[in-house]
Amino acid sequence: MGLATHDDGRRHEPSTRIIDDAPWQKLRDRKVSDREALLNTRPQWRLKAPVPESAKDVSHLSISQLTDREKEIVHCDATSLVQRLASRRYTAVEVIHAYCHVATISQELTNCLTEIFFDEAIARAAELDRHLKDTGEVLGPLHGLPVSIKDHIYVRGYDTSTGYIAWAYKSVATKDAVAVETLRKAGAVLYVKTANPQTLLSLETNNNVFGRTVNPFNRALSPGGSSGGESALIALHGSPLGIGTDIGGSIRIPAAYMGLYGFKASVGRIPHAGLRGPHAGMEAIIGVLGPLARSARDLSLFCRTMLQYEPWLIEPPLLEIPWKQSIVDGQSIPKRLCFAILWDDGVVTPHPPILDALQRTKRALLAAGHEVIDWIPMEHQAAWDLIVKLYFLDGGEEYRELQVNDPMVPQTEWIMNQAPNDGKPFGIRETFQLNQEKETFRHKVATHWNETKSRTTTGRFVDAIISPVAATLAPPHDTTRWWGYTSYWNLVDYPAAVFPVAHHDARNYTPPKLSADFVAPGSPRNDIEKFISAQWNPETYDNVPVNLQIIGRRLNEEKVLGMLNIVDKALDRKVDTSTVSTLNGQPSPDA
Amino acid sequence: MGLATHDDGRRHEPSTRIIDDAPWQKLRDRKVSDREALLNTRPQWRLKAPVPESAKDVSHLSISQLTDREKEIVHCDATSLVQRLASRRYTAVEVIHAYCHVATISQELTNCLTEIFFDEAIARAAELDRHLKDTGEVLGPLHGLPVSIKDHIYVRGYDTSTGYIAWAYKSVATKDAVAVETLRKAGAVLYVKTANPQTLLSLETNNNVFGRTVNPFNRALSPGGSSGGESALIALHGSPLGIGTDIGGSIRIPAAYMGLYGFKASVGRIPHAGLRGPHAGMEAIIGVLGPLARSARDLSLFCRTMLQYEPWLIEPPLLEIPWKQSIVDGQSIPKRLCFAILWDDGVVTPHPPILDALQRTKRALLAAGHEVIDWIPMEHQAAWDLIVKLYFLDGGEEYRELQVNDPMVPQTEWIMNQAPNDGKPFGIRETFQLNQEKETFRHKVATHWNETKSRTTTGRFVDAIISPVAATLAPPHDTTRWWGYTSYWNLVDYPAAVFPVAHHDARNYTPPKLSADFVAPGSPRNDIEKFISAQWNPETYDNVPVNLQIIGRRLNEEKVLGMLNIVDKALDRKVDTSTVSTLNGQPSPDA
Repeated sequence: MGLATHDDGRRHEPSTRIIDDAPWQKLRDRKVSDREALLNTRPQWRLKAPVPESAKDVSHLSISQLTDREKEIVHCDATSLVQRLASRRYTAVEVIHAYCHVATISQELTNCLTEIFFDEAIARAAELDRHLKDTGEVLGPLHGLPVSIKDHIYVRGYDTSTGYIAWAYKSVATKDAVAVETLRKAGAVLYVKTANPQTLLSLETNNNVFGRTVNPFNRALSPGGSSGGESALIALHGSPLGIGTDIGGSIRIPAAYMGLYGFKASVGRIPHAGLRGPHAGMEAIIGVLGPLARSARDLSLFCRTMLQYEPWLIEPPLLEIPWKQSIVDGQSIPKRLCFAILWDDGVVTPHPPILDALQRTKRALLAAGHEVIDWIPMEHQAAWDLIVKLYFLDGGEEYRELQVNDPMVPQTEWIMNQAPNDGKPFGIRETFQLNQEKETFRHKVATHWNETKSRTTTGRFVDAIISPVAATLAPPHDTTRWWGYTSYWNLVDYPAAVFPVAHHDARNYTPPKLSADFVAPGSPRNDIEKFISAQWNPETYDNVPVNLQIIGRRLNEEKVLGMLNIVDKALDRKVDTSTVSTLNGQPSPDA
Repeated sequence: MGLATHDDGRRHEPSTRIIDDAPWQKLRDRKVSDREALLNTRPQWRLKAPVPESAKDVSHLSISQLTDREKEIVHCDATSLVQRLASRRYTAVEVIHAYCHVATISQELTNCLTEIFFDEAIARAAELDRHLKDTGEVLGPLHGLPVSIKDHIYVRGYDTSTGYIAWAYKSVATKDAVAVETLRKAGAVLYVKTANPQTLLSLETNNNVFGRTVNPFNRALSPGGSSGGESALIALHGSPLGIGTDIGGSIRIPAAYMGLYGFKASVGRIPHAGLRGPHAGMEAIIGVLGPLARSARDLSLFCRTMLQYEPWLIEPPLLEIPWKQSIVDGQSIPKRLCFAILWDDGVVTPHPPILDALQRTKRALLAAGHEVIDWIPMEHQAAWDLIVKLYFLDGGEEYRELQVNDPMVPQTEWIMNQAPNDGKPFGIRETFQLNQEKETFRHKVATHWNETKSRTTTGRFVDAIISPVAATLAPPHDTTRWWGYTSYWNLVDYPAAVFPVAHHDARNYTPPKLSADFVAPGSPRNDIEKFISAQWNPETYDNVPVNLQIIGRRLNEEKVLGMLNIVDKALDRKVDTSTVSTLNGQPSPDA
């Protein structure tokens, strides 16, 4: 198979006979057994020993059958992997073999995959190896890099069921999404698509087509969503780099629950055309496509590569703002920064390990010579009340139509109950009013940020906000109740990256001593906080990562990733990330 | 009056007693007599001799009462004026005096003004003179420059009736628009607001509050609209620089009809917050604020000044893309450019003087060493059919409500008859569909532009399009029927600047010999073309300028203005602009 036809993988395309009136279970069974059949074509990559359903932590199993060399490969971050591929330390074929192997087991452990195209991937990798051998040059900056793709992003030749029974076997992409097309130009090797939840409007990952995706660190918990197939797969080393999408937290939440790095840029910077989902043409609030990865530098590798091909020439909504890697690398970022910490959003106070992570990040930043002040939270409940109207401008009509023969999973029921306006569509002039409310809100937040200038000693307003990603760590399935820490930044369209700080280990847990920076609410301020506060139990969240979020001003993508590097470095200097969880409970030196 | 309170001109604010049920004529009479009273406070600036209604060309009268020094002042472009103010060759007070004088007469000749605040302006100018004297420094890059403001843009302390009876005396701005605030920071002197038409959705200028604005070169013709007060005033040297807005041609059309330079940037680059108009919160198609001026360099002076104050920090929809003057000045613009000429949009063929101007511009560009190819027009009728739906998402409901006691002027009637969907609002899901159609259209045009690469010899796609601004020169009142040459570029959001090429003089007119580049349609292709074709008569359009338009790709504002400089220079080299009209009828050397 030549390079020119590498993306025509239709041999896996199932029959196009459409079974409209089949009960949804039949379509699910067919979809699941098709997937199983594909995995069975490579029995050597399947788990040798069955894992009991009761096993919670399965995170060590995904690489258990690998050779040492393969283990080395799947432990590289994407940046190191492309370097080693370019220098021919690894071949593209051996890299994709290793990742297909781990992805197979990852699927068995967490149910994270949807479409699988190992044959095409291996053929493509062989082509790339030949290309490098013949020309002495890599095809592009991602030459030979396996990249996983969230299900609702079009990959030519494969189904795009997107968690909808109605779309199963009816949504074979005839064209790649622009991001996917760009990945191919850059030399990436595509091999799997990954699970997303029904509606996509969920911070967990469950649907009737493929079922539920679980958290490999603790299978009683969610891997987050809606890019939860990605997060489970990448955390298990089944992919070095994946692409997700985020309209309320759908990249950041799964990356955070899984100890990964994830990045939601401002709207208009990263290619976004070529997604399948409800509400095409809805422009009141727009999602963003972006990377989930295992290092901070992989986030900028992805963004840089995306913009290298001038995607604004083929995707008109994109802004012609070339990527400035020099800023990511620190140029023009002041030596002494001022960070503002958002301890509590005024609606739902974060669980103790998250507050502790904020505290430790503050200490690390101070120790590195930066200034740290408090971010005064502003109207997170109002922001949610507004964004949920924007999500449901049509009152949820399209969701209901799509799901006539597709029962609502629990998180769909929950979000549908958030629909405003009694589930009726807004009138056109009400939407004008909502747009104005959105702009007024954005103006308020910008003003609020501008006003921090009076509280810093840098002569500038704060450079970034450090915030929880959610009020909880990866939660028990079907219990997500509050998006306010992430959706707020979609509403104002600010770039935000998540990064790992610690790992929560119930056995070694002692409650952190919280400094005076954080004032706990006396009693729950509302029903959601009551629910989430009652959820806290160190055992419930055993063995999952603790991440935080760094937020910058709109269109300052490079600066956010540059500051992320600085935070990362500060944290490394302070703590050994392999042992950070044991620091919980230490008194804060600056308390 | 100190600088700190310079913008509080409420002493001119009329009584706030609201006369809801007054017939519209009473409100009009009050508004007009208030304006008259203000002009009468400076009788020395009024026309000494009455001008008969029958006088068509009044363009020479506006400066007829000025001293030679004042004439020199009002003949400066804005760039030269700010230089001379900074070097103290002129004082701000003498400059504003000269402009107030000319503006007074301009009002008498063309009915171009709405709100007038000479007292405030003179006090402000005196402050600026003191500031320069005391500190030795200008307040900002527009120190002492008079700037006129289109009526619907908020200027603190003044009414913003925007051509609506319903808003007369009820719309005193409590806050400046962001662009106005920025002008003040930069040291500009505000002294008048200028007329816009009822609905703003008109390419002429007529409303029931202040009446009709006429073209000073030929008062039987329109000065264009909706920024027609601006164009009449600036053409008469009553303002060196004005700000208008453009959602379908409303900067470009009046600038073109009046031989001025005008610039519509892409959405998001130039401050836009603080406008009064129907459809606030409508985001499907968004207007742009921009300059009208008498030189190309004044367009970039305006843009540069606007972005110098980082307006994106206070107006969230603005893109943080700093102004790159070096590109305007030619840096990174290739020496040999390829221009594409749009001769005919496929719907309405332009009148002969416009075709001739295209021909002569082509010759000038070839002579300057550039490449010139044809732009193949693509779906201008479809573009109009779509954009008119976006203009009327609410079916025109809000217009009708606003005009319960405010009869439709003829151009309002015409545009209301264009309203799709039988004047009913679109449903929310229909708007999603329309947004998708818009994005599909934008993608088509981008692809069309990309494909020109195969027809150039530069190795690039075409750098810019040179196009008519309209099918006619400044038309007889109430006869505008086709927006397709301008609104098309609003639909795709491409930056476009208009520039003067010639002057149409009926006495010296001979039909131009058109080269084979232009293929005339055999017979009218549709009713609009039939109407406009029948309109052509050299006498009808006597004594008005002939402008063209240069269009670049989205967000390439600096490149468009840089290329405008190149076109300007090429035209100057070829022709003496004072005599260009006599060149009409010369055979094209490249025919």
